[in-house]
Amino acid sequence: MTVRQLSLEELVDACAESGVRGVGLWREPVRAHGVRATANLVRDAGLTVTTLCRGGFFTAIDPDARARALDDNRRAVDEAAMLGTDTLVLVSGGLPAGSRDLRGARERIADALGELGPYAAGRGVRLALEPLHPMYASDRCVVSTLAQALDLAERFPAEQVGVAVDTYHVWWDDTAPAQIARAGAGGRIHTFQLADWTTPLPEGVLTGRGQIGDGAIDIREWQGYVAAAGYTGPIEVELFNEGLWARDGREVLAETVRRFVEHAA
Amino acid sequence: MTVRQLSLEELVDACAESGVRGVGLWREPVRAHGVRATANLVRDAGLTVTTLCRGGFFTAIDPDARARALDDNRRAVDEAAMLGTDTLVLVSGGLPAGSRDLRGARERIADALGELGPYAAGRGVRLALEPLHPMYASDRCVVSTLAQALDLAERFPAEQVGVAVDTYHVWWDDTAPAQIARAGAGGRIHTFQLADWTTPLPEGVLTGRGQIGDGAIDIREWQGYVAAAGYTGPIEVELFNEGLWARDGREVLAETVRRFVEHAA
Repeated sequence: MTVRQLSLEELVDACAESGVRGVGLWREPVRAHGVRATANLVRDAGLTVTTLCRGGFFTAIDPDARARALDDNRRAVDEAAMLGTDTLVLVSGGLPAGSRDLRGARERIADALGELGPYAAGRGVRLALEPLHPMYASDRCVVSTLAQALDLAERFPAEQVGVAVDTYHVWWDDTAPAQIARAGAGGRIHTFQLADWTTPLPEGVLTGRGQIGDGAIDIREWQGYVAAAGYTGPIEVELFNEGLWARDGREVLAETVRRFVEHAA
Repeated sequence: MTVRQLSLEELVDACAESGVRGVGLWREPVRAHGVRATANLVRDAGLTVTTLCRGGFFTAIDPDARARALDDNRRAVDEAAMLGTDTLVLVSGGLPAGSRDLRGARERIADALGELGPYAAGRGVRLALEPLHPMYASDRCVVSTLAQALDLAERFPAEQVGVAVDTYHVWWDDTAPAQIARAGAGGRIHTFQLADWTTPLPEGVLTGRGQIGDGAIDIREWQGYVAAAGYTGPIEVELFNEGLWARDGREVLAETVRRFVEHAA
C-alpha cells in the first residue's frame, strides 16, 4: 500500500531494484491480478510475502452479515496460504450503525476468532489482530490498544491468533511497551509495521500515515521493544499517504528504504 | 465554546432563556471583554462560572518559553479567581518541534504543576489536567489517558491538581471507568465534560466534536461512571463544531439543552 501506484509487476521489479526481499500485500490488487498469478509472480522474483492485509470486520450484529464476513475471511485465509504467507492481518471493524456498545462489538470479534482461528491454523496461517489508533474506534476498529488486542488473542492458541504491532497505532500509549513484552512472551507478535505520526491529520484521518523519520515517533525505540520481546520477523513499512501516492512509486520505495536504514535498521 | 458565535452578553441572555445556570468560559473572549467586566456580567445574570478554559502548554524545553508559560498560567489562575470559578482546565501541550520524547514532555508537565499548584490553591483555584484523545498526542497534549493524567495529578494534593473527564477524549478507553473510580476516590474529578464522537473527522481533527446524541458515545453510561465515583459537580457540554458555529447560537444552545435532557439528565 505504501506504493499502491505501482502495478504488482512494477512492484516486484522495484523491490528487486531496491533490495527489498519481502512484501506485504493487500487483497484487492492481489485478487485483481489473480491470487495464483500473484503467487507465481512474487515467487519467481524471489520475494517473500510477509503478510496479507486484511481480513476482519467482525462486528456486525445481523447473522447474515456475520456469516458473509466469516466466509470472506475464510477466503482471505485461503489467499494467504496460496501466497505463501503465514500471516493474515485483521482489522476488527467498527461499531455497527446506530450502536454504542463497544463491549458487545469486542465480544463479537472473539466469537469470530473462535471460528476462524482453527480454520486458519489448519492452513498454516496465523491471524494477526491489529489494534488501530483510538481515532478509528467508532468506524473501523473497536480494538484500540495492544492490551485489548491481547485480551482477545489470548483466549486462543498463539499459533491461531496473535497481534500486529504498528507504531502508528500504539506510539502514544505508555503501556504499549509492557504489552509488547507480554505479546512477545506469548509468541504473539505476528507482524511489526512502521509508519510515522505527522500532523495535521487529513479529513477522515485515513491517509495521514507519515514517511519514516518525518514525524513524532522514535521508530528505533519501538523497534527496540519488539526486538527485546524476541521478535525476529520481518518489519513492514505501511504508509497510506496521498502525497506519497502522487509521486513516482519507485522513487517512493527507494526513499522508504533509505529512511528505514536511517531510522530503523 | 459550544456557542462561540454569541457575544458574552448574548450568551448570558441565551443561558437565562434556556434555563442554563452555569457556564464554562474560555480565556480569549473573557479577556477581550475584560475579566472584571465578564465577572460582573455573569454574576449579575445569576450565572455560575463552572470552569475557565484553559491553561497549560507546559512542554517547552527552552527555559524562557517555560517561564513565559508559567507566567501565563498564573494569569489564568488569577482570571479564574476573579471570575469566581474554582477550576482552571489545563491542556498540557504537545511535543516541542523536533522532539520525539513523550516521557520527557510528560515530566516537564509535572514540573510545571509543582510550581503552579500551590499558587492556584492559594487563590482557591484547582487545576484540572485534561487528558486529550490520543490523536492530539503530538501537537496538543502528550497526556492521552486518564491513567496518565492521574499519575501526574497524584503527585500533588487533590486541592491543587485533579483531572477533567471529557467523554470525547476517553470514550474508546476500556480502562477509563476504573480510572474514573480512582479519580473519584481521590477527590480529583474537577470537572466532567460532554461531547459526542462523530465521523468522519474533519481535517486537523479539532472541530469534529459532535452534538450530544449524534454519535457513538453512550453519554448516560459515562455519566453513570462519574456519578458512581461521587462526582456531584456541574456537567459541561463542550462542542467545537463548525456546523454548530455556523448556526444561530441561541438555537444551538436550546438544542444542546434538549439533547442534554434526552441523553444525560
